[in-house]
Amino acid sequence: MNLQGVGIGRGLALGPVLRMPDPLPEPSDASSGVTADEEKVRAAGALAATAADIRIRGQRAGGAAKDVLEAQAFMAEDPTLRDDVDTRIVAGKTAERAVFEAFAAFRDLLTSMGGYMGERATDLNDVSQRVVANLQGVSAPGVPNPDYPFVLVARDLAPADTALLDLDKVLALVTSDGGPTSHTAILAREKAIVAVVGAPDALQLADGVTVVVDATTGLVTASPTDDEISAARSTMAARAAAAVTPVGPGALADGTLVPLLANLGSVAGAADALAKGAEGVGLFRTEFLFLDSDRAPSVAEQQEKYTQLLTSFAGKKVVVRALDAGADKPLSFLNDEPEENPALGLRGLRALRANESILRDQLSALAAADAATEAELWVMAPMVSTVEETRYFTTLARELGLTTAGVMVEVPAAALLADRILADTDFASIGTNDLTQYTLAADRLLGSVASFQDPWHPAVLRLVGEVGRAGALLGKPVGICGEAAADPALAVVLVGLGATSLSMSPAALADVRAELSRFTLDQAKEFAEIALSANSAVEARVAVAAAASSLTNTTLTESE
Amino acid sequence: MNLQGVGIGRGLALGPVLRMPDPLPEPSDASSGVTADEEKVRAAGALAATAADIRIRGQRAGGAAKDVLEAQAFMAEDPTLRDDVDTRIVAGKTAERAVFEAFAAFRDLLTSMGGYMGERATDLNDVSQRVVANLQGVSAPGVPNPDYPFVLVARDLAPADTALLDLDKVLALVTSDGGPTSHTAILAREKAIVAVVGAPDALQLADGVTVVVDATTGLVTASPTDDEISAARSTMAARAAAAVTPVGPGALADGTLVPLLANLGSVAGAADALAKGAEGVGLFRTEFLFLDSDRAPSVAEQQEKYTQLLTSFAGKKVVVRALDAGADKPLSFLNDEPEENPALGLRGLRALRANESILRDQLSALAAADAATEAELWVMAPMVSTVEETRYFTTLARELGLTTAGVMVEVPAAALLADRILADTDFASIGTNDLTQYTLAADRLLGSVASFQDPWHPAVLRLVGEVGRAGALLGKPVGICGEAAADPALAVVLVGLGATSLSMSPAALADVRAELSRFTLDQAKEFAEIALSANSAVEARVAVAAAASSLTNTTLTESE
Repeated sequence: MNLQGVGIGRGLALGPVLRMPDPLPEPSDASSGVTADEEKVRAAGALAATAADIRIRGQRAGGAAKDVLEAQAFMAEDPTLRDDVDTRIVAGKTAERAVFEAFAAFRDLLTSMGGYMGERATDLNDVSQRVVANLQGVSAPGVPNPDYPFVLVARDLAPADTALLDLDKVLALVTSDGGPTSHTAILAREKAIVAVVGAPDALQLADGVTVVVDATTGLVTASPTDDEISAARSTMAARAAAAVTPVGPGALADGTLVPLLANLGSVAGAADALAKGAEGVGLFRTEFLFLDSDRAPSVAEQQEKYTQLLTSFAGKKVVVRALDAGADKPLSFLNDEPEENPALGLRGLRALRANESILRDQLSALAAADAATEAELWVMAPMVSTVEETRYFTTLARELGLTTAGVMVEVPAAALLADRILADTDFASIGTNDLTQYTLAADRLLGSVASFQDPWHPAVLRLVGEVGRAGALLGKPVGICGEAAADPALAVVLVGLGATSLSMSPAALADVRAELSRFTLDQAKEFAEIALSANSAVEARVAVAAAASSLTNTTLTESE
Repeated sequence: MNLQGVGIGRGLALGPVLRMPDPLPEPSDASSGVTADEEKVRAAGALAATAADIRIRGQRAGGAAKDVLEAQAFMAEDPTLRDDVDTRIVAGKTAERAVFEAFAAFRDLLTSMGGYMGERATDLNDVSQRVVANLQGVSAPGVPNPDYPFVLVARDLAPADTALLDLDKVLALVTSDGGPTSHTAILAREKAIVAVVGAPDALQLADGVTVVVDATTGLVTASPTDDEISAARSTMAARAAAAVTPVGPGALADGTLVPLLANLGSVAGAADALAKGAEGVGLFRTEFLFLDSDRAPSVAEQQEKYTQLLTSFAGKKVVVRALDAGADKPLSFLNDEPEENPALGLRGLRALRANESILRDQLSALAAADAATEAELWVMAPMVSTVEETRYFTTLARELGLTTAGVMVEVPAAALLADRILADTDFASIGTNDLTQYTLAADRLLGSVASFQDPWHPAVLRLVGEVGRAGALLGKPVGICGEAAADPALAVVLVGLGATSLSMSPAALADVRAELSRFTLDQAKEFAEIALSANSAVEARVAVAAAASSLTNTTLTESE
């Protein structure tokens, strides 16, 4: 059986399948031998133990996973739910059954009240399963943790699933749902795990079956032949050999420099990025400084972190993005009003403007860190959609002592007016994930519309080209910091469309560097034209691959 | 005091302010004289009476308001909540206090669990207020209902508020929140109520203060001078006189025909649309056929309704949109999976494709109605974003016997690839509300980002121009069916950008017809260029107004 999905990166892996386990069976409705009071004690104990366990897992995981797990711990401790469990026990149910029914009733209530409530229904199910498992003395369903390397097959991985995943044992990830920017895909890129996502029949793979997972083609081959296994092994060996060759600056075959930068979410990743040849940082996300607190960090606290960052990249460019939060990543001091469509809400610069002191503090801390260090600091605003917002941010950054200020282009309007936006700022950095999401009007995290979330779509490429053209006209740099830059073939197209630098997960740098070195700027422009004239993302990808392959063949023939 | 907001249409009104009342005070925590059992009976009675009352209001209101109110009735009847109320009564609370606390605890739980849950928190508050009011024997806060005409001032109006509003008494609506496509604005356009929305200081207007509400300028003048009152009265009299002049087809000053069509949501509006001079229907929404049922209507049921519709418009064009639903308007038989961002989810054609039998039934019913009647039926698909979707819908419609099939352009990608999309279908109809929402990445129903939801934004106009140019090149019609067409000055710009017909709420037809007749096609194109070169929506609007005014003055001078 062969499965087709969307490959993340170019990795290749071979190993046995392990599936995310199925949920626990429904607890029986038979009454138990013990008294209601004893059942109440059991239920209370299991709820408390589960809350404590979830909270510990959250603390170990840190970051965004911590928030998710903290919210789950609150559910296990909720007094309304506990009252409901007790009521059901008094009515004759076992603790297991009462927990199962109380959580299910609450979940159904949420679901019946409208579409959005169900968002956390899955979390309630997770918590319910953990409490019931605790009562039954069995393991809660979760990420498998065998003592041998395996290919993890799942519907899609939630942050809670991956928080404690032993990545050293995971050879590859295969999911049935989720697109190229799902949580699974982002994790795969960050950690350089081989992955194929959105392969509809993935859940039909049985535990123990050997698979070859090829991210370049998006193909998962189950029960491969001996020849297929040898081919996979020799490709993996060749790649491992290539990975140890020394690293130069990113450049096209004709010598055109294309600086290759790293996307980083914390200072901790700096050494790894440098080791993988990052020529600087193209996107430094600052959310980690704000997430674990109910207040914004002080200027001094921020300055210390930024100084660490800039010191790590002395002599190199570091592009720092101002806090990018919204109702989908609510911060109590910024914007925690519920929104029906948080992706279209008060987020990024919009939220910062509504809380200008937070933005001023952040920019002041950055300016102070810049003055004390030797890196070349650029700052940029997230979620900018108008000329007026561009002027606001650029003016404020300069007023606070920063020399280079720019904007993210991730909203279609900003790309469509790129000439006017770039006239009023120093540089643009295109966030291809959000730009694709908005251009196609398809939630990048929603499995049912994952097929639309493809940065190869000619409409997205046209918008990238608009920004590239405006940058060339005005002599302003245009970077790419979305995941599209990590796709080697697409990276060449983006340079052809006018991108002057590419920023990506450090794990992707080697493949992109190698691919860029194969083509000249004229060839990259030719590929860009080919992609733009395609009718769909798939056509664009196939047409560019064909053109690249025919070029390579021609070159080989000529050199023979 | 003068307030500036966004005017809807061109109406003018004068009258006394009445504000939406403030919520009830929090019930006291003092214990009552009656027993817990008596309090339980009181609480149960109030919950049941409130549920029944809400349900009756829903049935009277119909349509979308019915669904909202039905969901609220379920909340009042929820057994978990009622158990919680009883538990609190047993612990010594009054029925009022127990209801207040139980609903508040549940609301807080929802809010604490993440941003989206809070979506329905407001509804819980409404229900709680109604139950407490019932217990206290006072009126629930709600829409004021005096026996004199008044200007209603509110934060924003919810469907539940407007369901029973006596529109004959409402002179104008003024809101502090909500943008030009908020529920309030849509209601105002549908019912031709004078309205200014998003005027931040609106809630500072005191009850009884006289205001002049001018939708043309978006200005609300409180305590106007005698001169201001006379000016407003004479303008209103002049407009009333103009409204009774006979109606011809929509056309520019040079005779270029621009058919003016009606947006309709049910067959019931046909006579009114024709009376107001609609030359056909540019957008017939079919959702009403599907909303009140837990299954899709049969082909025969649909055929009957479509036949009524087409019979009403014999000899005229009628553009019917296929069912447009998604997680924001969930239908159990279509897509009721919860989504984090329903506006970016499985909606419109995406949802229909996942349930093709529903689409086939609808198109078959339309084809049968078409064969039996004399109107010119066009069908179109909502939420199309790719060439492939365009081909799918057009092919299917033709296969099922429909002669003219087209697509809505409301996703930026569809506008950016308009040349390729129009090559594969018969016509395009631009939905400016959604197109603006996606192009600016700003939820059209969210007050905090209402300022972005402005179809005058040059990025949106550029996309409209792309579709217009593609239509002209390929000889395919390009209609506008979003609310932008109802803005007279913008209507002229849209024609300048290549729109070949305009569809709107029938109430807006007269003003748009009058405005179109003032300018030639060349002048409209000139206005379009002026708007496209502006840096913002506000600049575009002001620059076009200045150009129109200078043209008019020139014409007057020349004719003197």
